[in-house]
Amino acid sequence: MLRFDSDYMETAHPKILEKFVQINFEKNTSYGFDIYSDSAVKKIRKECNAENAVVKFLVGGTQTNRVAIDALIEPYEAVVCASTGHIAVHEAGAIEACGHKVIALAGDNGKLSARELEGYMKTVTADETYEHMAQPALVYISFPTEYGTVYSKEELLSLREVCNEFSLKLYIDGARLGYGLMAEGCDVDLAFLAKVTDAFYIGGTKVGAMLGEALVIPEPTKVRKIFTQIKRHGALLAKGWVAGVQFDTLFDDGLYYKLASNAVETAMYLRDGLKKLGYEFFLESPTNQQFIVLTDDKLESVKDKIGYSFWEKLGDKTVIRLATSWATEKSQVDELLEIMK
Amino acid sequence: MLRFDSDYMETAHPKILEKFVQINFEKNTSYGFDIYSDSAVKKIRKECNAENAVVKFLVGGTQTNRVAIDALIEPYEAVVCASTGHIAVHEAGAIEACGHKVIALAGDNGKLSARELEGYMKTVTADETYEHMAQPALVYISFPTEYGTVYSKEELLSLREVCNEFSLKLYIDGARLGYGLMAEGCDVDLAFLAKVTDAFYIGGTKVGAMLGEALVIPEPTKVRKIFTQIKRHGALLAKGWVAGVQFDTLFDDGLYYKLASNAVETAMYLRDGLKKLGYEFFLESPTNQQFIVLTDDKLESVKDKIGYSFWEKLGDKTVIRLATSWATEKSQVDELLEIMK
Amino acid sequence: MLRFDSDYMETAHPKILEKFVQINFEKNTSYGFDIYSDSAVKKIRKECNAENAVVKFLVGGTQTNRVAIDALIEPYEAVVCASTGHIAVHEAGAIEACGHKVIALAGDNGKLSARELEGYMKTVTADETYEHMAQPALVYISFPTEYGTVYSKEELLSLREVCNEFSLKLYIDGARLGYGLMAEGCDVDLAFLAKVTDAFYIGGTKVGAMLGEALVIPEPTKVRKIFTQIKRHGALLAKGWVAGVQFDTLFDDGLYYKLASNAVETAMYLRDGLKKLGYEFFLESPTNQQFIVLTDDKLESVKDKIGYSFWEKLGDKTVIRLATSWATEKSQVDELLEIMK
Amino acid sequence: MLRFDSDYMETAHPKILEKFVQINFEKNTSYGFDIYSDSAVKKIRKECNAENAVVKFLVGGTQTNRVAIDALIEPYEAVVCASTGHIAVHEAGAIEACGHKVIALAGDNGKLSARELEGYMKTVTADETYEHMAQPALVYISFPTEYGTVYSKEELLSLREVCNEFSLKLYIDGARLGYGLMAEGCDVDLAFLAKVTDAFYIGGTKVGAMLGEALVIPEPTKVRKIFTQIKRHGALLAKGWVAGVQFDTLFDDGLYYKLASNAVETAMYLRDGLKKLGYEFFLESPTNQQFIVLTDDKLESVKDKIGYSFWEKLGDKTVIRLATSWATEKSQVDELLEIMK
Repeated sequence: MLRFDSDYMETAHPKILEKFVQINFEKNTSYGFDIYSDSAVKKIRKECNAENAVVKFLVGGTQTNRVAIDALIEPYEAVVCASTGHIAVHEAGAIEACGHKVIALAGDNGKLSARELEGYMKTVTADETYEHMAQPALVYISFPTEYGTVYSKEELLSLREVCNEFSLKLYIDGARLGYGLMAEGCDVDLAFLAKVTDAFYIGGTKVGAMLGEALVIPEPTKVRKIFTQIKRHGALLAKGWVAGVQFDTLFDDGLYYKLASNAVETAMYLRDGLKKLGYEFFLESPTNQQFIVLTDDKLESVKDKIGYSFWEKLGDKTVIRLATSWATEKSQVDELLEIMK
Repeated sequence: MLRFDSDYMETAHPKILEKFVQINFEKNTSYGFDIYSDSAVKKIRKECNAENAVVKFLVGGTQTNRVAIDALIEPYEAVVCASTGHIAVHEAGAIEACGHKVIALAGDNGKLSARELEGYMKTVTADETYEHMAQPALVYISFPTEYGTVYSKEELLSLREVCNEFSLKLYIDGARLGYGLMAEGCDVDLAFLAKVTDAFYIGGTKVGAMLGEALVIPEPTKVRKIFTQIKRHGALLAKGWVAGVQFDTLFDDGLYYKLASNAVETAMYLRDGLKKLGYEFFLESPTNQQFIVLTDDKLESVKDKIGYSFWEKLGDKTVIRLATSWATEKSQVDELLEIMK
Repeated sequence: MLRFDSDYMETAHPKILEKFVQINFEKNTSYGFDIYSDSAVKKIRKECNAENAVVKFLVGGTQTNRVAIDALIEPYEAVVCASTGHIAVHEAGAIEACGHKVIALAGDNGKLSARELEGYMKTVTADETYEHMAQPALVYISFPTEYGTVYSKEELLSLREVCNEFSLKLYIDGARLGYGLMAEGCDVDLAFLAKVTDAFYIGGTKVGAMLGEALVIPEPTKVRKIFTQIKRHGALLAKGWVAGVQFDTLFDDGLYYKLASNAVETAMYLRDGLKKLGYEFFLESPTNQQFIVLTDDKLESVKDKIGYSFWEKLGDKTVIRLATSWATEKSQVDELLEIMK
Repeated sequence: MLRFDSDYMETAHPKILEKFVQINFEKNTSYGFDIYSDSAVKKIRKECNAENAVVKFLVGGTQTNRVAIDALIEPYEAVVCASTGHIAVHEAGAIEACGHKVIALAGDNGKLSARELEGYMKTVTADETYEHMAQPALVYISFPTEYGTVYSKEELLSLREVCNEFSLKLYIDGARLGYGLMAEGCDVDLAFLAKVTDAFYIGGTKVGAMLGEALVIPEPTKVRKIFTQIKRHGALLAKGWVAGVQFDTLFDDGLYYKLASNAVETAMYLRDGLKKLGYEFFLESPTNQQFIVLTDDKLESVKDKIGYSFWEKLGDKTVIRLATSWATEKSQVDELLEIMK
């Protein structure tokens, strides 16, 4: 079967495994105080143009969201996000497990607009009973979103403005960050994200790493005792270098961007190919996730030949997601297109 | 000023104060093991036709909701309610503080229908990613609702059926329970609530008591170590009889119902009077809370003469709430009607 | 039976009930924004010589401890207390329920000394693994302690010094505060407590009120959004004046102190009487709780005639607690002494 | 420098890295539903003689303890452990973060005896105020302990008996499980642990794996919705096979035991060598952690040549820990002994 189910099916870029083999018997200092983590932190700070940034390596998006959000706000404060946000739907209540209410606004194709956010904040802050409510202190957005869409520089600046107006922090879930940064038409880079947000993470698990996400908090005074907090969440790696080595490799000579670009390019090739074949798209995504609308007959005829993710029913049709990754080859897309003919 | 702001502005029915004066220097056993609490529990069990029911006296709706919901479900389980539900809006994230996600469905005039609940549950349980979600384990409804509306026997039975289908518990927030039970056309009584729900509470604070709510869990096996849990929530009264005496008095010779009836009757009188005067109502409420739609001119002209609760803006008009209580006198309504002319 | 079980067996000082009767049908503003709460806050601020103090009325010691501690420190921070501290033993894990580790040091007769605290803090902060530990941020002491003992001004100043050295907050559980302030030889008053602590509470439930504790946070910048936090804990009184009226009465013309003095005086009378009869005391307590050591024979012979609290087994003897209260009369002590002869 | 600081300084046994290289571009199913995890689970179940056991792969001891304990007991229930237990000291309050009180008994050389446990449980359950306490529901022990000591079969059976008497669950933290199982004189194996405990974990991170721990819950009915709970803790691996491959390799042909044996053998060689040199030992440890007592002069003279862990001050001497691992070579011990001469 030709699998386009997701972007985390392969293990790791070969350079990472090579590095592990090479350093295997070196004796490293634990808990992230090793030379590889140190080097990776420096590279990421440089890339973010944030020389004092707190950079911590964690494992998995839910864990990183938990740790970051819980460190950035008080336990009695709430988070605002789009209704499709990962924390609102697919994290099994991990944010609530830390005591925070998650307030989901409708959003649009996975994105939360400054206008929608401002409307909501104006309404609640004007309400006489606001003190009886869980009060928002942080806005969570995904980049790219769960629907593969990305925010422009202008959109992020507008969100930031609303955040400033209402004393909200801005946090970006970057599980697939590379795929967003390399998206067609994206005008945003790491240095900009470090300026516009209070924290964000650079996803490794889905972009070439075996596992690992790099949480970036550009302004270190925004959090206290982050090491202890990470430990308390059960998120501290005894062998910190296992993540450190990976990010050190990914941010060596732009490997992270190259891997991300491969996914975007093969996705665009797939998209164009399917469009030529007349397929209907659920929405326009400039990233590695493509959402197509299939009749049940069509789905039935291909479902044993290709791996995909079911997304949702749309009347009598079905939306499926096809995802490319850093490891996808153009020839695999050609095979897919052949099957989909 | 003529105050119709809410139903908890007076202190307590005189019989309660008299009782306190009478027993003031008696030495009572603490933590609810006194004779008054014991007597109150027996009366409530009898009224509920649930002789083994756990009955606990707490203070305040948010506290009671916290304790009850947290005792009924596991920390990783979620609660479903209408978007207007008190726990969803006005409890400052108290349920999330215990780790539970609160899932708000739209609802209709404050009510959650069996159909809407079933639709939601069918969708999520059919979703392949359901195990990644915070899974509902309890349905929260208010009786009467935050909009003064009430559920019929049939509606509650339908909700129960859906709950059974999806292994959900059913819990009723009865902050104003008396006003619902005595509502025009209500076909529900305490014994029925004890049969149809897993737990509910009989609100005292808003229905004649100085303070206190009686949490009723008809089937005692549904909760474990409830005494210890109440203590852990900071909700255990050292002087349990302070609540016990009140419920013992309220459930003596039907006082609770009489007090509730007074509020409903004066509210219906108010409603009819305002209708005659041509006022528009936001919705039909058969209970002590009445929601009327006023032009800004009208509101301006009366706002210094009457006390009311702002509810919401409705285009260029305003919805206000007028509430009667166990202590409202018909003559006060007459005065109000005079002002509103 | 002659009951000396505890100091919370009577309902309330008659002046409080009289006041309730008097204002019963007044319509009050809710959530603590009423005139009685306002007046009580002003009186307490004055008594504490802390004109900007946050003063909030809550119900019960466990609730007040939960709210105060959780508001004063971060969720990942720990509390240090004596092993006999109420939060360490008898609050069903209420502090841990908010995520905080409770670290119990041995203490001495219920008291925590500056020396013991400093020794502990020096050890842990010098430990290389300190960042892996739950780090103390607040010291909890009781005044008087669970064993009836009190701290002197000098002892409190020493504790404060250690707190300053290690950036710890100092919090006093004052469930029986009055009985400590009026203790023989006590050189501490409310104004001093307001200076030496970050927060403390003035217990009402055990000192003349029907229920209610006044949480005092002398420096308002020490907490944020305390109203919302109180609500989230389920601790906000809809009828705030129910507590307000009580503290307004207790702090009218020094009633609180007079009531406390009565308990201390009758306790000293009881102590002296029992000493004359040759009874052994478990420790010296200058407050309303007296701990005596009885042989099993003696205990057997009086246990049906007097109410007491079992404290602990001491070899083949038993320690019991006898407590006087604001309502205890000298003649009741005389009766007790007669029985104990 | 010759490093004996800890047993988690090398990356992974070469067979594990080889396997990763070999399967690198295979497309695996996510969240643990891959063929390697499946194979690893089967091998572990077989080794445990528990064919229905829930086996889940997590990352790190703190995370595994959090997930396991929180899944096994109710949020209001407490955990009992030795005062040296990892959860009591070095997990930054991770267990309290889930709401559970951790009750630390003294213990002896890291071990908790049935006698001490029984004594504690008898005292608290006999206390009239037991319902006001956080009540123990689970006993946590480490195998081997933080001091390298191990429990015998008989000791574990005695603990189990006390657990049964008081309805406590028994849980083993097996961060270094292999080193315990292969200890000199150990009469315990995985199948016995699966019988005597309610849950335990097989540590991989410190015993040959790059990272990963295998949580084993022999009787699946002991936990509900464990997948969702793991996700909520932020502990679900998107690429489950990253852990699966490792345990599949470790439990292939007894590799786990061989690696553990190497650490124990080199530790015994180190111990015997140091004893011959006249060194004092802090306690007798039959496992890979050895604790020796050094004068300050001696410590000063070797501290730049060898890596060790500071353990504690002992009067004017110092206790240090030297740890061997699966990767330690005899020649490295020879070098150490040479330096220590």
